[in-house]
Amino acid sequence: MLGEIKGINEECGVFAVWGHKDAPQLTYYGLHSLQHRGQEGAGIVASNGEKMQVHKGPGLVSEVFKKGEFERLRGEASLGHVRYPASGSDNGFADWQPLLIRSETDSMAIAHNGNLVNANGLRHQLESQGSIFQTRSDTEVLAHLIKRSVYPRIEDKLKNALTMIKGAYAFAVLTDNQLMVAQDPNGMRPFSIGRLGEAYIVSSETCAFDAVGAEYLREVEPGEIVIFDEEGMHSEYFTNATSRVLCSMEYIYLARPDSNLDQINVHSARKRLGKELAKEAPVDADVVTGVPDSSISAAIGYAEEAGLPYELGLIKNRYVGRTFIKPSQELREQGVKMKLSAVRGVVEGKRVVMVDDSIVRGTTSKRIVRLLKDVGAKEVHVRISSPPITHPCYYGIDTSTKEELIAANHSIEEMREMMGADSLRFLSIEGLIKGIGRDTDEPNGGQCLACFTGNYPTEIYPDTLHPHDKR
Amino acid sequence: MLGEIKGINEECGVFAVWGHKDAPQLTYYGLHSLQHRGQEGAGIVASNGEKMQVHKGPGLVSEVFKKGEFERLRGEASLGHVRYPASGSDNGFADWQPLLIRSETDSMAIAHNGNLVNANGLRHQLESQGSIFQTRSDTEVLAHLIKRSVYPRIEDKLKNALTMIKGAYAFAVLTDNQLMVAQDPNGMRPFSIGRLGEAYIVSSETCAFDAVGAEYLREVEPGEIVIFDEEGMHSEYFTNATSRVLCSMEYIYLARPDSNLDQINVHSARKRLGKELAKEAPVDADVVTGVPDSSISAAIGYAEEAGLPYELGLIKNRYVGRTFIKPSQELREQGVKMKLSAVRGVVEGKRVVMVDDSIVRGTTSKRIVRLLKDVGAKEVHVRISSPPITHPCYYGIDTSTKEELIAANHSIEEMREMMGADSLRFLSIEGLIKGIGRDTDEPNGGQCLACFTGNYPTEIYPDTLHPHDKR
Amino acid sequence: MLGEIKGINEECGVFAVWGHKDAPQLTYYGLHSLQHRGQEGAGIVASNGEKMQVHKGPGLVSEVFKKGEFERLRGEASLGHVRYPASGSDNGFADWQPLLIRSETDSMAIAHNGNLVNANGLRHQLESQGSIFQTRSDTEVLAHLIKRSVYPRIEDKLKNALTMIKGAYAFAVLTDNQLMVAQDPNGMRPFSIGRLGEAYIVSSETCAFDAVGAEYLREVEPGEIVIFDEEGMHSEYFTNATSRVLCSMEYIYLARPDSNLDQINVHSARKRLGKELAKEAPVDADVVTGVPDSSISAAIGYAEEAGLPYELGLIKNRYVGRTFIKPSQELREQGVKMKLSAVRGVVEGKRVVMVDDSIVRGTTSKRIVRLLKDVGAKEVHVRISSPPITHPCYYGIDTSTKEELIAANHSIEEMREMMGADSLRFLSIEGLIKGIGRDTDEPNGGQCLACFTGNYPTEIYPDTLHPHDKR
Amino acid sequence: MLGEIKGINEECGVFAVWGHKDAPQLTYYGLHSLQHRGQEGAGIVASNGEKMQVHKGPGLVSEVFKKGEFERLRGEASLGHVRYPASGSDNGFADWQPLLIRSETDSMAIAHNGNLVNANGLRHQLESQGSIFQTRSDTEVLAHLIKRSVYPRIEDKLKNALTMIKGAYAFAVLTDNQLMVAQDPNGMRPFSIGRLGEAYIVSSETCAFDAVGAEYLREVEPGEIVIFDEEGMHSEYFTNATSRVLCSMEYIYLARPDSNLDQINVHSARKRLGKELAKEAPVDADVVTGVPDSSISAAIGYAEEAGLPYELGLIKNRYVGRTFIKPSQELREQGVKMKLSAVRGVVEGKRVVMVDDSIVRGTTSKRIVRLLKDVGAKEVHVRISSPPITHPCYYGIDTSTKEELIAANHSIEEMREMMGADSLRFLSIEGLIKGIGRDTDEPNGGQCLACFTGNYPTEIYPDTLHPHDKR
Repeated sequence: MLGEIKGINEECGVFAVWGHKDAPQLTYYGLHSLQHRGQEGAGIVASNGEKMQVHKGPGLVSEVFKKGEFERLRGEASLGHVRYPASGSDNGFADWQPLLIRSETDSMAIAHNGNLVNANGLRHQLESQGSIFQTRSDTEVLAHLIKRSVYPRIEDKLKNALTMIKGAYAFAVLTDNQLMVAQDPNGMRPFSIGRLGEAYIVSSETCAFDAVGAEYLREVEPGEIVIFDEEGMHSEYFTNATSRVLCSMEYIYLARPDSNLDQINVHSARKRLGKELAKEAPVDADVVTGVPDSSISAAIGYAEEAGLPYELGLIKNRYVGRTFIKPSQELREQGVKMKLSAVRGVVEGKRVVMVDDSIVRGTTSKRIVRLLKDVGAKEVHVRISSPPITHPCYYGIDTSTKEELIAANHSIEEMREMMGADSLRFLSIEGLIKGIGRDTDEPNGGQCLACFTGNYPTEIYPDTLHPHDKR
Repeated sequence: MLGEIKGINEECGVFAVWGHKDAPQLTYYGLHSLQHRGQEGAGIVASNGEKMQVHKGPGLVSEVFKKGEFERLRGEASLGHVRYPASGSDNGFADWQPLLIRSETDSMAIAHNGNLVNANGLRHQLESQGSIFQTRSDTEVLAHLIKRSVYPRIEDKLKNALTMIKGAYAFAVLTDNQLMVAQDPNGMRPFSIGRLGEAYIVSSETCAFDAVGAEYLREVEPGEIVIFDEEGMHSEYFTNATSRVLCSMEYIYLARPDSNLDQINVHSARKRLGKELAKEAPVDADVVTGVPDSSISAAIGYAEEAGLPYELGLIKNRYVGRTFIKPSQELREQGVKMKLSAVRGVVEGKRVVMVDDSIVRGTTSKRIVRLLKDVGAKEVHVRISSPPITHPCYYGIDTSTKEELIAANHSIEEMREMMGADSLRFLSIEGLIKGIGRDTDEPNGGQCLACFTGNYPTEIYPDTLHPHDKR
Repeated sequence: MLGEIKGINEECGVFAVWGHKDAPQLTYYGLHSLQHRGQEGAGIVASNGEKMQVHKGPGLVSEVFKKGEFERLRGEASLGHVRYPASGSDNGFADWQPLLIRSETDSMAIAHNGNLVNANGLRHQLESQGSIFQTRSDTEVLAHLIKRSVYPRIEDKLKNALTMIKGAYAFAVLTDNQLMVAQDPNGMRPFSIGRLGEAYIVSSETCAFDAVGAEYLREVEPGEIVIFDEEGMHSEYFTNATSRVLCSMEYIYLARPDSNLDQINVHSARKRLGKELAKEAPVDADVVTGVPDSSISAAIGYAEEAGLPYELGLIKNRYVGRTFIKPSQELREQGVKMKLSAVRGVVEGKRVVMVDDSIVRGTTSKRIVRLLKDVGAKEVHVRISSPPITHPCYYGIDTSTKEELIAANHSIEEMREMMGADSLRFLSIEGLIKGIGRDTDEPNGGQCLACFTGNYPTEIYPDTLHPHDKR
Repeated sequence: MLGEIKGINEECGVFAVWGHKDAPQLTYYGLHSLQHRGQEGAGIVASNGEKMQVHKGPGLVSEVFKKGEFERLRGEASLGHVRYPASGSDNGFADWQPLLIRSETDSMAIAHNGNLVNANGLRHQLESQGSIFQTRSDTEVLAHLIKRSVYPRIEDKLKNALTMIKGAYAFAVLTDNQLMVAQDPNGMRPFSIGRLGEAYIVSSETCAFDAVGAEYLREVEPGEIVIFDEEGMHSEYFTNATSRVLCSMEYIYLARPDSNLDQINVHSARKRLGKELAKEAPVDADVVTGVPDSSISAAIGYAEEAGLPYELGLIKNRYVGRTFIKPSQELREQGVKMKLSAVRGVVEGKRVVMVDDSIVRGTTSKRIVRLLKDVGAKEVHVRISSPPITHPCYYGIDTSTKEELIAANHSIEEMREMMGADSLRFLSIEGLIKGIGRDTDEPNGGQCLACFTGNYPTEIYPDTLHPHDKR
């Protein structure tokens, strides 16, 4: 369930517009629908072809942007970003994206979703050549690589830079004359192209197309650079050794249910995962409930397949914000709750199937089992709509270190006992692939399964910074 | 669905603690779980038996209270309030509740949920006798009546004052020595008593008991004053001409699904309303969807009874806050959306049953039908889990004036056409009573049905201020 | 010198406009020039003859009012107030003035400068009759007295109320139809009437007339009510047992040098006080310096009379604001300074006459003598341009309790030694009267000298609250 | 008088501490006393020898820093900066100084007072080599030059960089192991070294030494680099072609009266300028007044020399802050004033000598003459304690472009007529040199007189950006 509770910090979201007179406003609404991908900071760069303006800062999109900002942010091209925390940092302004670089002659803005695995070494080398870094972000590494490239054409500078970086990424680069977007050779992060009248839209998720009234065109392909300029849309490739292995966690928990990832609807995929789970791990029970919000679809699928009633057994308080005061240990022990409540009227005396999407550290599952038992659940059967997470992710899903991953260190029976459940079952890898249902012959069903299998689709280096440290 | 969209402004919430060393903190968490009853302002008064401190202001509970406030707010008794907008007012501080009245000799704090129907006349009379009012709230009317009462005992002053007011109300009065709570003779607003160790809790909804780990004790009865003081809990009655007619809208849309109102679970009641609706108004369709959040339970009930799959056909954006910039008319027409999105992957090509809890002005229903059709729904059948609202409410549910109530001015077929639905059906009054399922022989099933029938349980006066004007 | 350093908290300021289309804006600029009379809070009420709007809050005038406020504050009549701290209070909004009272039928706003000596008893009596007080201010006592008066005419209600209060006061009352201002029978607080075209202005000091381009008309007389309405300006008296004894401290330190108090210019009066002081207490020295800002005029006068050069021996840091972080004890001992610096280049090796306007607790004088000696002053001769303060003030000048008044408890020689000065002399009472130079035969020169003599011009009651407690 | 009124934007201030356990707090108090050199932004970097922390932002020192910041800003070395506006910029955080540069291996912080004349070309060249600039500040140019220098020792990197820049500058560079400060070869900006126990202090003005209890040691010499490290204080020179030509405007109006510049006290110098002016340009008059605050010393000197009384003829409102609402044109014409008032009681019927320190655009002088005449001054004789400013400054005093300089385009008689004065006289260049009184044989008395003579002490390039554009 909830990333912030169990340690999966959500990723970033990128949204860009090319060729619309209200580009910055559209970007605001687009980012707003990508808000679930990053609630800690937001930024928009607007370009009128001659000058770029930026506004960014910490907080939700609706907190960072006030109406007045859009008197300054003007132009037909715009690039926006939402991101997860930059904790431990004191750089303030510089830490938020997009990164805007102005020189005497031109301007360039960059935004990024993903994580590089060789940023550390590249940064070291650039600094030794006299480059000054303002942030610790991968985005700035790309900026320096572009800036130092000797190719005259900006497209070639970008390609040149991309050949030097490795990892999972979806980059958007806005210059005075064009918008360029790029995917890593494995296409690990979602990145889609849409159309709104004459304008082009690029977004990390398709739900943002619906939010602004745009229609879906196609995906940005692995290894592809798509360029939007005054002549329209062009495509180039900076590598041809590509294959699509889209991140499984996007389907399992991260993306919005109304998004389509590589043309597969997320809610439907999750419902299928629930159905597969019901087939693989049935149980004799009275009601099925899901952990709001990300597990609801899977719970409905499970209930439907199992022929059991789906109930609102857990309620989430919507008003827990940044400034919420956490209860003291003493009050917590007395029963003061924050976000989730179990619904006694639904659960009391019942055998409950509790469907969750994944388990990272296991602490949340334990808490939820207790919540349900406290209001009188007779039995609690935990069903997880994904396989056990046994390996850390280096591509932008912040799943803690291996030591913290409960499934990397415990058997399923141990985990069941730790969380106090009457039974615990995970979806199999086959069930996962089948449930997502990508129409492909590739071995993993075209998915990155590294966190379940340890088979990473790129090199991992000794000095690959753990995402925690890179923030 | 959402009050703020369709014009039902949410009510207030009251929460009080007597006899707990962390009373103000508990009140914070209690109010937090009543946040859905009023997002516009919050306040807490703390009493240590000698002195009262108050903190209140506009915004969510988590916005109004910072950690530091609780260094000042101390004591074993506490009274809190959340409320809906005080638009048009510029009184700032004074407008938020609880109202704290300090004199040379003692202090008194009052908070209120409901609406008086004779406040206007009482205020007039009090002002002509030299009383100065700081606000336009009913709460201050009660305060002046208590203050001017010649009875020596505070309990008798309160009873004396209550005999002069009419309407729907749940009052809590905190003095230096006791906490007193009172219900109107018709028991129209929910008000429950709980217990946490040696302490007593009073709350507008029972979900707040779960939030702080308290157990439910009983309801405050119609016409009852319950007094908590150093000798424990006592009960007195200020009238014996009482009967319970609890507001139906509390069950239908206002209360939280995990609350029990007069011992009936709200989620279960709503699910039963959905089932009754499916029996009364079946339809040949492919999927059932509900309008988040308040109609989900009814939609699940409908789906279960009808044997149709329940799907997430509509997604609500959780991040629309106070400061969200509304799209311009032009952008709205281009398709920019704010709160709700229809999920194409679920709805496209389908015959959809869209369950909503009620219809006030009809504009939201129209918009949702269009959202669903825009993403390819083949048919949209609107099913409302309550009867048509044909009369304004004078008891605290702000349902606009009669002119604005679509069902007061149009036939069902006209409404269907206006909203572009393929069919439209409402639940019957019998279905409503049966669905809520209160175990009673009383004619209306012990419910206030005034907004559906026009049979008001109290007098209504020519000068009864419309709630809009009273805010 | 500085009130906040030595314990004289500054008074309040009142400014009102009748009959100008930009009344609220003029009030803003008027209050701004009265800012020295109260930096802790500000407020403006505007009336368009039908409705009153208020905006008030903590902080400087320029902090409390943003441009946007004046879209709401409109009308041809306006009443404003600046005030000193309301420490210990948590009433927020209600504590700032003007106090605005709205009833069903009309509105009334009140602002006040001064202090009542019988407010305590009046409040007690009003509360026992059922009145509810929102604040602890004298202003609200007057409001209740007016509201409860049985006279039909508002002017008579006000007169009736004024007969019940005692102390030093300058009240302004704005109703829907008129502006009324009143002085206490002793005329202790300054209050002047000005004219700007067809409009009338009332202000605590005449410097505000210059600030808005108005011309001086006359003083509000002791015991007088001046009424401004659609027929112009009228005068009535609520008592005829009157005599003017204007507060001496207004001349000595409180008022702005460019104001005229009862037609005597403050800078010129102070310069004369300095000259008298030079005659009474000459000294063989090299330079004269004054403590900025309030003692500069007296220092110039002293230098001129003594034939010595006047120098900037002490510099005040202008940027010490509300949020300034005070140095720790350790850093203070190492020599870290905050507000005042002595100028080594001017003082080193010199025999310095340091002129200050008054001494309350003596701690500031001690600090300044040390500052001067630390940068090399050979001798420091302290000259005070007023007599020793030996009695507390009950009329609005917050000069601490008798225990804290250094001159009430020590001889001049003791004081000299405590502050480490080479000599210390105060102005005599005769010198004070002569220096101020009011053209009158009355015994005290028409001044209130209570803080120097203990002869209070009104009754003082056992329960007269010390101003500290009344805030 | 006031820079912001007449167009001389104040310069920057630099303050650093080496070797004191409360270094960041001392920097706070030091910057506070340099606040007059820049009110628009402030910043402090603290170093504990291993890690640097920064806090900076827009506003006064007391606004930017809250107490809590000093829990994070810790260490025995600290570097601070106050600066003038960065208008037109939207870089937020990055624009304030010190500039903090962190790399994988070490950290460096830089702060600067002055202006480079060849920054433009250097930036161009650096960008063409791949450097990315975050700001438009000269400081960042130096940072890149240091970073790209191939010398291994940091001192040599700094020297190497300094050989490439031209203009007026006082730089402070803090690394993990040392504090380095440097002056341009002409020593145009003030920069002094002080001592506080074992610690060293560097400051733009000596008033900051008094503020923190430090004693003055010596100046940083033209062309000198002074290095503070664990072995104490060392001196090196990066050039030996040096001569001191300290900015005259520092004496005339910019520095604080209690500072000594190159060992000359500023108040005393100004007083001498006033005396010289009285000798050169006497006039038959009744009173002398100065424009607060910067012209007071000169006015006192003029009065003393002329044997005329010095009076407070003009009062400055201290409370005009950032958020002050400017009066509309209409209200201004009616006489609404903002900052300055003339004191009628002092000026009426008098022949007034009004001493001001300098004239840039002439608009302020015109306004003041009118203020004085409006309150009845019989004659107004304007005396300026510096020569006419006829040439723009490229060294950090922001005196507008040549077109805007009134004295560059008009004769003295024309100026007199434009401002409505009865006479107007400026101090001569000889009087200026004599008044400042530096003990030197050098032709200009060791002063930069470029703004009066056009003889610039460095090269000026065709592409030298006007300071306006560089902000």
